[in-house]
Amino acid sequence: MSKIEVAIIGASGYTGGELVRILSRHPKVEITTVTSRKNEGNPLSELHPHLEDLDLKFSNPENKDVDADIVFCAVPHGASMKIVPDFLNNGSKVIDLSGDFRFQNIETYEKWYNIKHIHPELDAVFGLPEINRDLIKDADLIANPGCFPTGAILSSLPIVENELVDRIILDSKSGVSGAGVNPNGNTHYPTCSDNVKPYNMTTHRHTPEIREQLRNFGNGNVKVSFTPHLVPVIRGIITTNHSFLIKDNVTADDIYSLYEEYYKNEAFVQVLKDNRVPLLASVRGSNYCQIGGISLDDEDQLVVISAIDNLVKGASGQAIQNMNIMFGFDETEGLKELGLYP
Amino acid sequence: MSKIEVAIIGASGYTGGELVRILSRHPKVEITTVTSRKNEGNPLSELHPHLEDLDLKFSNPENKDVDADIVFCAVPHGASMKIVPDFLNNGSKVIDLSGDFRFQNIETYEKWYNIKHIHPELDAVFGLPEINRDLIKDADLIANPGCFPTGAILSSLPIVENELVDRIILDSKSGVSGAGVNPNGNTHYPTCSDNVKPYNMTTHRHTPEIREQLRNFGNGNVKVSFTPHLVPVIRGIITTNHSFLIKDNVTADDIYSLYEEYYKNEAFVQVLKDNRVPLLASVRGSNYCQIGGISLDDEDQLVVISAIDNLVKGASGQAIQNMNIMFGFDETEGLKELGLYP
Amino acid sequence: MSKIEVAIIGASGYTGGELVRILSRHPKVEITTVTSRKNEGNPLSELHPHLEDLDLKFSNPENKDVDADIVFCAVPHGASMKIVPDFLNNGSKVIDLSGDFRFQNIETYEKWYNIKHIHPELDAVFGLPEINRDLIKDADLIANPGCFPTGAILSSLPIVENELVDRIILDSKSGVSGAGVNPNGNTHYPTCSDNVKPYNMTTHRHTPEIREQLRNFGNGNVKVSFTPHLVPVIRGIITTNHSFLIKDNVTADDIYSLYEEYYKNEAFVQVLKDNRVPLLASVRGSNYCQIGGISLDDEDQLVVISAIDNLVKGASGQAIQNMNIMFGFDETEGLKELGLYP
Amino acid sequence: MSKIEVAIIGASGYTGGELVRILSRHPKVEITTVTSRKNEGNPLSELHPHLEDLDLKFSNPENKDVDADIVFCAVPHGASMKIVPDFLNNGSKVIDLSGDFRFQNIETYEKWYNIKHIHPELDAVFGLPEINRDLIKDADLIANPGCFPTGAILSSLPIVENELVDRIILDSKSGVSGAGVNPNGNTHYPTCSDNVKPYNMTTHRHTPEIREQLRNFGNGNVKVSFTPHLVPVIRGIITTNHSFLIKDNVTADDIYSLYEEYYKNEAFVQVLKDNRVPLLASVRGSNYCQIGGISLDDEDQLVVISAIDNLVKGASGQAIQNMNIMFGFDETEGLKELGLYP
Repeated sequence: MSKIEVAIIGASGYTGGELVRILSRHPKVEITTVTSRKNEGNPLSELHPHLEDLDLKFSNPENKDVDADIVFCAVPHGASMKIVPDFLNNGSKVIDLSGDFRFQNIETYEKWYNIKHIHPELDAVFGLPEINRDLIKDADLIANPGCFPTGAILSSLPIVENELVDRIILDSKSGVSGAGVNPNGNTHYPTCSDNVKPYNMTTHRHTPEIREQLRNFGNGNVKVSFTPHLVPVIRGIITTNHSFLIKDNVTADDIYSLYEEYYKNEAFVQVLKDNRVPLLASVRGSNYCQIGGISLDDEDQLVVISAIDNLVKGASGQAIQNMNIMFGFDETEGLKELGLYP
Repeated sequence: MSKIEVAIIGASGYTGGELVRILSRHPKVEITTVTSRKNEGNPLSELHPHLEDLDLKFSNPENKDVDADIVFCAVPHGASMKIVPDFLNNGSKVIDLSGDFRFQNIETYEKWYNIKHIHPELDAVFGLPEINRDLIKDADLIANPGCFPTGAILSSLPIVENELVDRIILDSKSGVSGAGVNPNGNTHYPTCSDNVKPYNMTTHRHTPEIREQLRNFGNGNVKVSFTPHLVPVIRGIITTNHSFLIKDNVTADDIYSLYEEYYKNEAFVQVLKDNRVPLLASVRGSNYCQIGGISLDDEDQLVVISAIDNLVKGASGQAIQNMNIMFGFDETEGLKELGLYP
Repeated sequence: MSKIEVAIIGASGYTGGELVRILSRHPKVEITTVTSRKNEGNPLSELHPHLEDLDLKFSNPENKDVDADIVFCAVPHGASMKIVPDFLNNGSKVIDLSGDFRFQNIETYEKWYNIKHIHPELDAVFGLPEINRDLIKDADLIANPGCFPTGAILSSLPIVENELVDRIILDSKSGVSGAGVNPNGNTHYPTCSDNVKPYNMTTHRHTPEIREQLRNFGNGNVKVSFTPHLVPVIRGIITTNHSFLIKDNVTADDIYSLYEEYYKNEAFVQVLKDNRVPLLASVRGSNYCQIGGISLDDEDQLVVISAIDNLVKGASGQAIQNMNIMFGFDETEGLKELGLYP
Repeated sequence: MSKIEVAIIGASGYTGGELVRILSRHPKVEITTVTSRKNEGNPLSELHPHLEDLDLKFSNPENKDVDADIVFCAVPHGASMKIVPDFLNNGSKVIDLSGDFRFQNIETYEKWYNIKHIHPELDAVFGLPEINRDLIKDADLIANPGCFPTGAILSSLPIVENELVDRIILDSKSGVSGAGVNPNGNTHYPTCSDNVKPYNMTTHRHTPEIREQLRNFGNGNVKVSFTPHLVPVIRGIITTNHSFLIKDNVTADDIYSLYEEYYKNEAFVQVLKDNRVPLLASVRGSNYCQIGGISLDDEDQLVVISAIDNLVKGASGQAIQNMNIMFGFDETEGLKELGLYP
């Protein structure tokens, strides 16, 4: 079988770089277009020094001239909704990595992103394979989940679906690459290193995304709060999932078994043997989500930990996982790389 | 007035080093004894290279020969209870930095530390000046608080005392110096850097210490859970204090004002102007506890952030603050150093 | 063609972990034996948490029972020379990652390592493919180069072979994983982070290894000094190669062209386009050696920079590159992974 | 005695922040003016969160209205030369932290900074107390040395003055705060962390500054090359000083004794006991320059290591040391803080 042709729109950032890094080694794919308005004509290695060996240059075609089986859109929210319809019209499948198509309820999007949605009619599938695999198979447009929601939702699903809890506090610690490739005061090494910065304590845009997805499970009423922190790490998100059991006679072992069973067929969700604690270092550079460290105290507080690489399972790797599903490839194709530890 | 004489017992570790660093610049103090069994006769700078200019050597005297106005005990829990009575018998005041004397309820100590207490009869004051200043003035024995409890309790007091919440989830992020000076697998740079490690998710020994202290306030029934994380930072603890309001018609501004009022006379608790978010980098090397980032969402979740330097306000600086109170010095004497930022 | 069978001896450390990480994805290899005396019977993921998905356990067979086409020896120097002959007697090819077989001059080894060599009769090939590819093809025993020598030699070869310089100062900056998996005071996070530690300023054991190899080139008289530094980085070695031109009328451009030409057929040596400066981040996790930043000042000082990942091109990746050559595989097989940037 | 009045011009950056941090605790100084054009009217703590307790705001007065005994100029080179004469005309003494007045040879300045000097007539003293203490006492205008030159010159003086070497290679490793407070691609955490970046391999502007100063010593002909590297550290510069002995029968011990003797009366230069190796962590936040690790190999290569905090001894601390000398204070006044280790 010939390879499918892939275009990456807006590849100057980290998620674009990751898409190229992974797809360039994917056996069923040929990267035919990598775009950047500002860097047209330049070799990718100017911005992505690890891609020195690839003979690829940034181009800047008209949308109608992007001829590809699948288009990955890695442009900012607000910009994405303007161009996605063009690629769909070209007959391409589209995986959008922005927030533009992630919400079933458009009003939620418009309120939290403070942008009028210009294509509310487009039907996208929320691209978390662990909950939407069947829908993804047949979708033309995938809204790739946010980085925080990926780890947060996977850490919550079994206890929400089984109505073991009615309130979840998600305390997440994220590496700085999540802030993107453009430097600012928050990502400046001298203030970022040897520091921890809580931010958007109750107002992060990933909050409604997590809430909307989790309320599709259980009784649909789970309360969710989410507080992100910037930690001096390049990649990765640890989510500490705090909740309180509302059912009696449930042990930590029961809950561990519930998670094991829930994810037993998932290639990229590892409920760790012996309930070991997930680490960022274990998933660095890989598409795995690790879950473990499940603990229950004598006042009914439950803790569950998840770890992902925000740029892989939290963005580009998950997008490629979605592509594999959409084109009938093995879901792990091109994504078998293990974590880079240490 | 002549200077008081100070002895530091067990000064090979980080809290010992910090005591020497700060006390050597304290105008009312002379360090007369610095002990270490293993390093007897060696200059301090062998272990503490920043102390090159001090002409101090480790000694190893008998307890009865430690002649000092005040003794700082910086030895491990279990070891401390064995030697503290000797120094009290010598007529010295004692500030103990271990966990041995922190508990009013000895059974709690024995259960969580798994050690039989051999001196339950000794009365110690829990040395958090912000709650026990008057008792500290007249005490002979101070139990210096744990590093996590210091930031956790200070972040909680106003809302617990005012019964605004009945359950608190403390999610703390600690620098690696909190693990002490002895290397082990958890503090090994290659596995510690670029990583976040949740640990003792519901079983950390500082949990009962926080609970016992906070239950002296409000209705005495607040539920407290505590989860620590190791972050790739040398010093400092950020505590993210999550709770749920149980009173109506309270705004984030009300709570911010409550904190401001509560701590307005405290030299070392800074409720940040404009509710700015505390940072580890702002308190690095200083005795300040910063509080801010107070936020409330539309589902009644409250977030309060505190930041301390675990080795200063979380250990040695607080010990010296207690000493200042005990000897009638200005409470800030020797502790005026500002944070080392960046 | 059936896969070759591979044994890894002493796989509890970082180079062992890297061998497994890379070989488990190598299409022509089956890992049949992974040994550790201390961890016999335990799953690899206990020590190597990124290997959770591999169904491998540590074993501890007798040497004579290690039945493999190739044996990677990842035990300390001194220990290696005791067991390598056994594997050769079994009929296996052997790649030794220790220093035991790297020296043509056994006296140099015995002086710098302070160990009596018990198998001086064994003929090993120094496994730097860029200089010894033809010998490696037919070798039974490969001495895999040290991490520092790999980057140092590759940065020096063109100017030494062409006798442009007669003295080279190699100032290397190494990540902490180079110190191995066992924690000690030098690798303790609180003293290692936010710090730079020069060490063994003129006495590092890799000095004679670099000297012996480089003196096979040019007039055989180049003087070489080498000073390593520990930097707060997990992986990677930057070598800053300082020298002084002894030929007239040579420009920086000439030297850049010389390097380009010298390495034009090498798959894993990248002389960077536009003479860009190599970065650790560009080669992280990959088998590439980047060379660039070639500069010449008005007092004839020449600077050349090289960057490698000490655990990959500096150890396990290079070992696998040697294996590929020995078995007639494509030299890049299993080693195509690009650097993990950022 | 009443306190002297101090103005800090351009205090939005790191050196400005450090001047305030240290001077606010200096017993003989009152900070009366802290300027920033962009931040006029704002509290300092907005930019410098560690200064929360100081009741200081940025102002933006006309130069003629800056009424102070001493003015610290912390504005960029090029800007500084335009305003320094105004403060001198006001009758203030001036310490300039830019490069504008550091060169005896104006042509060197103009060539390396590519700026026409508009006040070549102004006589400034190069403010390195260890070589110019007597001149500093009576100076009205001090050119505070660059960060790299401070550590580089102090590591070189004894061997240059005694003509033990004729060529010095300075390989420096600098923390990222040296790049200033404004974020850019080079200081972006994800690309800066876990990385080492050589830059300006033979073209850094501190090269001619080091050369001009060192050629005032010995035979005036020493050749000097200088290569800086950015390392993932917040503060500090390690300089590895490589050279080759040109005198016979000199041992490493001789050279160590030479350094000890040379600096025996210097309060801020520590030639480390037992020739220990300097560390960034030992001098963090302090005004010390540590020297040690002096080594000589069997091919006459000499290595000397120096360590400073680039923002203290390399900038603001040294400026205050100069101020102390100019006003007849104890040279260590306000600068007694020990390194913050760990």
